[in-house]
Amino acid sequence: MLSVDERVRALRALMEEKGYDAYLVTGTDPHMSEYVASRWRTRAFISGFTGSAGTVLVTKDDAILWVDSRYFIQGAAEISGSCFRLIKLDIDDNPDPYTYIEKNIKSGLTVATDECGINIDSYNNLKKRFGKKGISFVASEDLLDKIWENRPSIPNSTLRSVPLGYCGLESSDKLAKVRATLKEKGADYTFISSIDDIAWLTNLRGDDIKCNPVFMSFALITMDKAYLFTSPTRFTDEVKSIVEKDFIIKPYEEAYTELKNLVLGVAYYNPERVNMAFASVLDVESSITGRDITTDLKAKKNEIEMRGMRRSHLMDGVAYINFLSKLNTTPDGSLDEIAVSTLLEKERERLEGYLGPSFNPISGFKEHGAMCHYSATPESSKKIDCDGLLVLDTGSQFYYGMTDITRTLCFGNPTEEEKKDYTLVLKGHLALARQIFYKGTKGYQLDVLAKQYMWQAGMTFYHGTGHGVGFNLNVHEGPMNISSKPIDVALEKGMVVSDEPGIYKEGRHGIRIENLIAVDDYVQTEFGSFMAFEVLTMVPYEKKLIDLKYLDDSEIEQINAYHQWIKEELIGLVDEDAKAYLESATSPLVRE
Amino acid sequence: MLSVDERVRALRALMEEKGYDAYLVTGTDPHMSEYVASRWRTRAFISGFTGSAGTVLVTKDDAILWVDSRYFIQGAAEISGSCFRLIKLDIDDNPDPYTYIEKNIKSGLTVATDECGINIDSYNNLKKRFGKKGISFVASEDLLDKIWENRPSIPNSTLRSVPLGYCGLESSDKLAKVRATLKEKGADYTFISSIDDIAWLTNLRGDDIKCNPVFMSFALITMDKAYLFTSPTRFTDEVKSIVEKDFIIKPYEEAYTELKNLVLGVAYYNPERVNMAFASVLDVESSITGRDITTDLKAKKNEIEMRGMRRSHLMDGVAYINFLSKLNTTPDGSLDEIAVSTLLEKERERLEGYLGPSFNPISGFKEHGAMCHYSATPESSKKIDCDGLLVLDTGSQFYYGMTDITRTLCFGNPTEEEKKDYTLVLKGHLALARQIFYKGTKGYQLDVLAKQYMWQAGMTFYHGTGHGVGFNLNVHEGPMNISSKPIDVALEKGMVVSDEPGIYKEGRHGIRIENLIAVDDYVQTEFGSFMAFEVLTMVPYEKKLIDLKYLDDSEIEQINAYHQWIKEELIGLVDEDAKAYLESATSPLVRE
Repeated sequence: MLSVDERVRALRALMEEKGYDAYLVTGTDPHMSEYVASRWRTRAFISGFTGSAGTVLVTKDDAILWVDSRYFIQGAAEISGSCFRLIKLDIDDNPDPYTYIEKNIKSGLTVATDECGINIDSYNNLKKRFGKKGISFVASEDLLDKIWENRPSIPNSTLRSVPLGYCGLESSDKLAKVRATLKEKGADYTFISSIDDIAWLTNLRGDDIKCNPVFMSFALITMDKAYLFTSPTRFTDEVKSIVEKDFIIKPYEEAYTELKNLVLGVAYYNPERVNMAFASVLDVESSITGRDITTDLKAKKNEIEMRGMRRSHLMDGVAYINFLSKLNTTPDGSLDEIAVSTLLEKERERLEGYLGPSFNPISGFKEHGAMCHYSATPESSKKIDCDGLLVLDTGSQFYYGMTDITRTLCFGNPTEEEKKDYTLVLKGHLALARQIFYKGTKGYQLDVLAKQYMWQAGMTFYHGTGHGVGFNLNVHEGPMNISSKPIDVALEKGMVVSDEPGIYKEGRHGIRIENLIAVDDYVQTEFGSFMAFEVLTMVPYEKKLIDLKYLDDSEIEQINAYHQWIKEELIGLVDEDAKAYLESATSPLVRE
Repeated sequence: MLSVDERVRALRALMEEKGYDAYLVTGTDPHMSEYVASRWRTRAFISGFTGSAGTVLVTKDDAILWVDSRYFIQGAAEISGSCFRLIKLDIDDNPDPYTYIEKNIKSGLTVATDECGINIDSYNNLKKRFGKKGISFVASEDLLDKIWENRPSIPNSTLRSVPLGYCGLESSDKLAKVRATLKEKGADYTFISSIDDIAWLTNLRGDDIKCNPVFMSFALITMDKAYLFTSPTRFTDEVKSIVEKDFIIKPYEEAYTELKNLVLGVAYYNPERVNMAFASVLDVESSITGRDITTDLKAKKNEIEMRGMRRSHLMDGVAYINFLSKLNTTPDGSLDEIAVSTLLEKERERLEGYLGPSFNPISGFKEHGAMCHYSATPESSKKIDCDGLLVLDTGSQFYYGMTDITRTLCFGNPTEEEKKDYTLVLKGHLALARQIFYKGTKGYQLDVLAKQYMWQAGMTFYHGTGHGVGFNLNVHEGPMNISSKPIDVALEKGMVVSDEPGIYKEGRHGIRIENLIAVDDYVQTEFGSFMAFEVLTMVPYEKKLIDLKYLDDSEIEQINAYHQWIKEELIGLVDEDAKAYLESATSPLVRE
């Protein structure tokens, strides 16, 4: 196997051949997925850096890796000894990769990138930006492919079909909705590249990407035909016969060569999701652009999907209580961070319809909990052998839904500061969940509800307050969210989002409390329609960390009602020896 | 004087001559001002409709007036008997003027509008939009001018100079700041059309528009020169000598002819504020566009301006208490809506430095209070002769600042519903004012704080929660605001905004409570910088309308502290016979 430096040399030789002065590696897959299969871990291949985010630029005499603060240490370690140098993002006025190119690549030179690794929108913006400096920006063939020995192949997991009893809507009905929207928009066809959208549309699931039950594919929907570009060898006969009722199956790679021959008229597509290899067909004057139609449809879970989401949370609640009960009786100091998440995973594995985690669990004790993206490794995994808080952020995939939950657990005795911080996070979490809101309200309008109390105390957090969650799909799903960013998407009935404020004190402790909440209709008044959230998650808060002096009576009532509901729903389902724990964890809070 | 129909006939003859098939009248002035001087009341001239908002389209055989719900009745009445017909906006799927043009003007035809009555951005967008339908859109000379006998001339009020002791920053220093920003942006000059920006920049005030101390002008700032285009006859020798230290004064109209001769290099300008007559010079490839630099500078009041704003509110508080005290002893049933606002105005006229109202007062009793934009006329002015609420929204201009305040007053005994509604509005108003927020927070993030409680009760309001307020300038001043619209402007130290939630129940009552609040630094913690609001307004809330059962103890404390502060500040300043009233209106709320 070539070393990193040998790979860079080989890449430079190819660049020379092609007339490229710099080569940019974005590290995404041809579908702009958040998580990518090993075939597209291009950033790791060329630089040796294995983190989940970063950008690489190779010039004739330089090789640079940009990483954000999560990866300052890991990035430096992994490129150490190679020809790469590190630029840390967001500190010391360091330039991001694009600013760097603008300022350091000379006018007249050419920067190239794999056409499949950049979306049409980004490419056009960068081309314009670099063009102002006289720099050419070329969407090229994938140069790394030519030097990548034993490159992992395109994933080809076997597909399963989601029965109507789980998904609630036949593919043919989904196609009809897409076509109706196309008609409204004045378009004749749509080309979809977002693989979770395609999974939703086809009612198929695969295992191409860890934790995300998606499969590599493109879809083309015209007014009378629907094409699914994906490996034909991945279907069982039974699934194939279901899919072929609605879709013409064509090999994955044929999307690139055949699209132009299959379409006629006005295109509708999402230029932020479709890669540049399709630009010659789609990026034309007549095209209409916007979010994928399926993205909006998928986000609003139907009644059957909602039933499955509720069941997922009931099941997850059972596992969580069994887990917490066991944790409660485990001898002090016998577990580390990984052992805790493994204990929970074991309980989940007992559940009917459980498929696996919906993302890599985060289990961070004490100061590790203050790192939002901490992922315990066997080396880092901290022994839980003293007083402290543990942030445990995990989720489950079920055939019939998905969960995503964070609880902050208290080992030993909490400090006053920890209790105050926990209670302020909880107050915000409760305020968001109980808010009734005017129809048409967007997530950014509600974000402050989760932050208001910690802000009064001079504290805040920097991640989003809530992300959309898929139905047995991606744990991060658009288009809506709850954050300070003005995403112009109203919260509509059936949307499921997380409610997860936190406080992170570097070197000391982290706190995050996360439930999933679903948007529902609430009431119609002379002022119009109002919506409310339904809480899905069924796991009690950590009572040891709640300081009643920061709560008003209505907040205590809200917590008690939530705990009472959990107890009633779960008491008949948890293990016999977990019942006492459940009773105690859900007993009412009472002011002294 | 020509009748409306005769004017339309004359316009059609001119359209015929020019080859225009339709003529659009936007009704704005050449500076895109919110309020316009009578010279530019073009909408009223051509249609007879005198309201403050609306659009007119005259075609060869049709004449249409669009108005929003505020003006459905007035609009219909004022055009009755003329050739105009009314299209009501925002109901029955009625088309807005631009959709109407797209759908009803045939391909190949030409729509024209006065080039001075449309900004560059709107024109370009509409031209593109209409172009897709084959309709030409022409920025024309002002056809109405040719048929407008005795058209009011361009206002030419005498200017006063704002002393440094009030404005806190010399014009030369303001110019230096503008030039520094121009340099950062890579521009060589800026052309400013926003007349309140020019008033700020020049430290001049005029009386060209009622309640807005502005003057018709353009400004051109290059790196070494500054031009002020405004009537040279409006200066006293003294003011002229001050202005000429920094500006070359040129006649107003010369901006149109001379701009091209005075500029060199890259322009910076606001295409939403500059009219199309300047497009040939400014709307070119090399130009940089954005908000006027002065708009951002003006919004952040300096320490001297803040001192004046506080003094304005102290003065206004004195007048308001004197007024409320008098109102309190006026025999029942002896006043109507206009008499109430007149009584307040009389008290303000006694204040040192008072210049006049900052906008037309709104005084709406009972169901009139439910109309947000109600303006009492001698005919409509309701007698206050029974139990009911009065919404009183007024403001003052001072040499040294400005106020804008709404109080909802209770005559007789309130109903339980009125008390509940008032208290829910008050809770939101208090929540916004007391919120500490992370530096960089934008108004849209805080908006829900004012709405959260009424939303829980299925009520809302449809106007903005807060608008920026000028320093002895326009009562509505950008760029920031507090509303559900995602205006991407952070709240910064020195910005003054209103805090004015309301509840409006058609046919019954209206409630609005408005204070002005100023953004200030608050605290620096390990999480970063936090900001807070300083309340400027000094008038007690209506205690008769506060229902303590909806308030928690901290809210009662917040109100009591506010009232206590008002009492302490004002007790030595109000009329002797108003002292008892002040004592009583500010005495603490106590739970029974």
